Amino acid sequence: MALKSFVEVQPDSHFPIQNLPYGMFRPEPGSEPRPGVAIGDYVLDLSVVASAGLFDGPCLKNSDCFKQPNLNKFLGLGRPAWKEARTTLQKLLSAAEPVLRDNASLMEKALVPMDKVQMLLPIAIGDYTDFFASKHHAKNCGLIFRGPENPINPNWFHIPIAYHGRASSIVISGTDIIRPRGQGHPAANSLPYFGPSRKLDFELEMAAVVGPGNELGKSVDVDEAADHIFGLVLMNDWSARDIQAWEYVPLGPFLGKSFGTTISPWIVTLDALEPFASDAPEQSPSPLPYLAEKESKNYDISLQVSIVPAGHKDAFTVTRSNFKHLYWTITQQLAHHTINGCNLRPGDLLGTGTISGPEPESYGCLLELTWNGQKPLSLGGTSRTFLEDGDEVIFTGCCKGDGYTVGFGKCSGKIIPSQP
Amino acid sequence: MALKSFVEVQPDSHFPIQNLPYGMFRPEPGSEPRPGVAIGDYVLDLSVVASAGLFDGPCLKNSDCFKQPNLNKFLGLGRPAWKEARTTLQKLLSAAEPVLRDNASLMEKALVPMDKVQMLLPIAIGDYTDFFASKHHAKNCGLIFRGPENPINPNWFHIPIAYHGRASSIVISGTDIIRPRGQGHPAANSLPYFGPSRKLDFELEMAAVVGPGNELGKSVDVDEAADHIFGLVLMNDWSARDIQAWEYVPLGPFLGKSFGTTISPWIVTLDALEPFASDAPEQSPSPLPYLAEKESKNYDISLQVSIVPAGHKDAFTVTRSNFKHLYWTITQQLAHHTINGCNLRPGDLLGTGTISGPEPESYGCLLELTWNGQKPLSLGGTSRTFLEDGDEVIFTGCCKGDGYTVGFGKCSGKIIPSQP
Repeated sequence: MALKSFVEVQPDSHFPIQNLPYGMFRPEPGSEPRPGVAIGDYVLDLSVVASAGLFDGPCLKNSDCFKQPNLNKFLGLGRPAWKEARTTLQKLLSAAEPVLRDNASLMEKALVPMDKVQMLLPIAIGDYTDFFASKHHAKNCGLIFRGPENPINPNWFHIPIAYHGRASSIVISGTDIIRPRGQGHPAANSLPYFGPSRKLDFELEMAAVVGPGNELGKSVDVDEAADHIFGLVLMNDWSARDIQAWEYVPLGPFLGKSFGTTISPWIVTLDALEPFASDAPEQSPSPLPYLAEKESKNYDISLQVSIVPAGHKDAFTVTRSNFKHLYWTITQQLAHHTINGCNLRPGDLLGTGTISGPEPESYGCLLELTWNGQKPLSLGGTSRTFLEDGDEVIFTGCCKGDGYTVGFGKCSGKIIPSQP
Repeated sequence: MALKSFVEVQPDSHFPIQNLPYGMFRPEPGSEPRPGVAIGDYVLDLSVVASAGLFDGPCLKNSDCFKQPNLNKFLGLGRPAWKEARTTLQKLLSAAEPVLRDNASLMEKALVPMDKVQMLLPIAIGDYTDFFASKHHAKNCGLIFRGPENPINPNWFHIPIAYHGRASSIVISGTDIIRPRGQGHPAANSLPYFGPSRKLDFELEMAAVVGPGNELGKSVDVDEAADHIFGLVLMNDWSARDIQAWEYVPLGPFLGKSFGTTISPWIVTLDALEPFASDAPEQSPSPLPYLAEKESKNYDISLQVSIVPAGHKDAFTVTRSNFKHLYWTITQQLAHHTINGCNLRPGDLLGTGTISGPEPESYGCLLELTWNGQKPLSLGGTSRTFLEDGDEVIFTGCCKGDGYTVGFGKCSGKIIPSQP
């Protein structure tokens, strides 16, 4: 029989006792940030659980990791501490366990209605890296920009290609995104123009949150890489395609990306995702030995993007994709990132890149969905090539279990006009 | 008559009273990091100066900015606080001022011999960005990799091109650099190889240290950009050319750079550099209005790179360049960085990119100096195309004043073999 909590959890909730994702929240405006896990329509305040002495295992008993302004310290403790916390919390929240269930005053303090809290960035992000791990996305970009001969660059099949992103402009779901200004260049031999981006896009991504880091100069073995990943979040890597197209040769994306990146507030742990593991696609050619892993896995996470167009109330689904479509796994990404000795730190973020599936309805950004603006998308009486001011973009992601759902909640942001 | 300190300063010292660069140091192993300024062969401990109540101006009187583990808080206070600190410290250290000069016990505590201290990273670096601002470097790279037709990409003349770098692997001068491992790809249609980099290079750069940041979504006007820059450091952006060449299309440099970046310990302030300001080169075509500054200036900073080859004791100078050769100014770089709304934070680092001059003897990296390995450099009986294990690379930089030198000290690192 499936594990159940005494906290009521609706059948379609993303947050049953099987999930228990971690976030940082303020119970009320102006109060100190504190860590929590989501359970049904509530947030369990981990600072209260810790103060009550209920984390009594060897890793957490004497730790102040739940009295910090972010989750970095907890993440740095590694998998034994994460397992211990999960065991403690699943027991504490289970229907059969009286400790919290039958203590009304503790419950009052520890369980905060989710609709009352303000969610915050769960981690201090030292460095943010974005990969390019979907073959379908790489192929579509190549077809659009370079044509049908060799749409995918030769290096792509050997390297989990990535670039360093901007950490300072990563924001939490719900934060408005100001349309960036910048230079565009409509055609060869024209002069560049300057102004608000004319090709503002979303990118459907997920990101791995790094747990324990590695010392500068010491690589992480691909078969041990999973121990360095705490969990996953949804991520919208907003992109200004006109700025990006003009600036990116030869050093890669810069201002076309760095105006804002949105992540979902709840980090779903790899432990919660484990029942949804799936075989990663076969890789041909075989990767070099340092990327060849004993077990190469993805997760079956259904992803969906919907847009509430400016002036509308309803959301229209524009794509359905799945994390399992990724060619390079998150463990290969992490191992590759460190193979040169680069050090990762707890709280670092490794984005997957746009997660496109094989069918046109599963492409992960408007660039692909509208084929660079050539095929507008119809959205209930209106249409879009790229995003307009007032549009809200909403990502959701979830795994369907037997009688329960392990989900990520949502990752949303609304476009507001450029500022002079 | 030039300002003089009661602390003896050798004529060729980089650290006269006209300089007063900021750093973080430990007076002895294991002690708490503290901020200091360099004066002659001494470090003035600012935590001692602050504790003695000698910062008595309005900005600093009640501030704890010199009791922090890095300079970020001081940097965030902005130019009025920096000016106040400079005025206070120049007065305190001047030959005519008895407060410190005649207080033997305070002097004993406050002045620490430089050869006794351990220098540390002076700032917590939230994000590190690297520009590509030297026209000579851009042209040489184009000639080497793409040939003589249009060696410089068309966007380069309109955009201060840049990429996001890796903040975690920035280290202080004197830290050994482990030769990175990675993939290389000798020729089209070959298979990639894996191993220690065969083309390890230095890049002669400087970096601007950001003072007060800007809010996400709010750009910094180019004519106000200087108020957001505290000062400059020397920077060696170590580069593995073989890894970089194979990985960088289409998203830019990644593992070819992220294994280590070295900065010098002393941040020389723009106030100290002001007497050495020089007109920036004329820009043609004219930049777009958001990059057109009322006063476009560089600084006349002589830069030198020398190598102590493995097994040798002597250093051989391999290049002499100058900061004044940069095409895009640091204020244009900063304004461009924020034009899309990207937020900067105190302590962020903006590298200039390799600073090459017009003559072959002034090229800023081995890629250019040896023309991608085709013309080995002779170093007193040995020769180099790229760096070998055991080689030490030393950057120095200074400005020659009338009877004094404002310098950066040195920025050095030694290559040690790859680790398995």
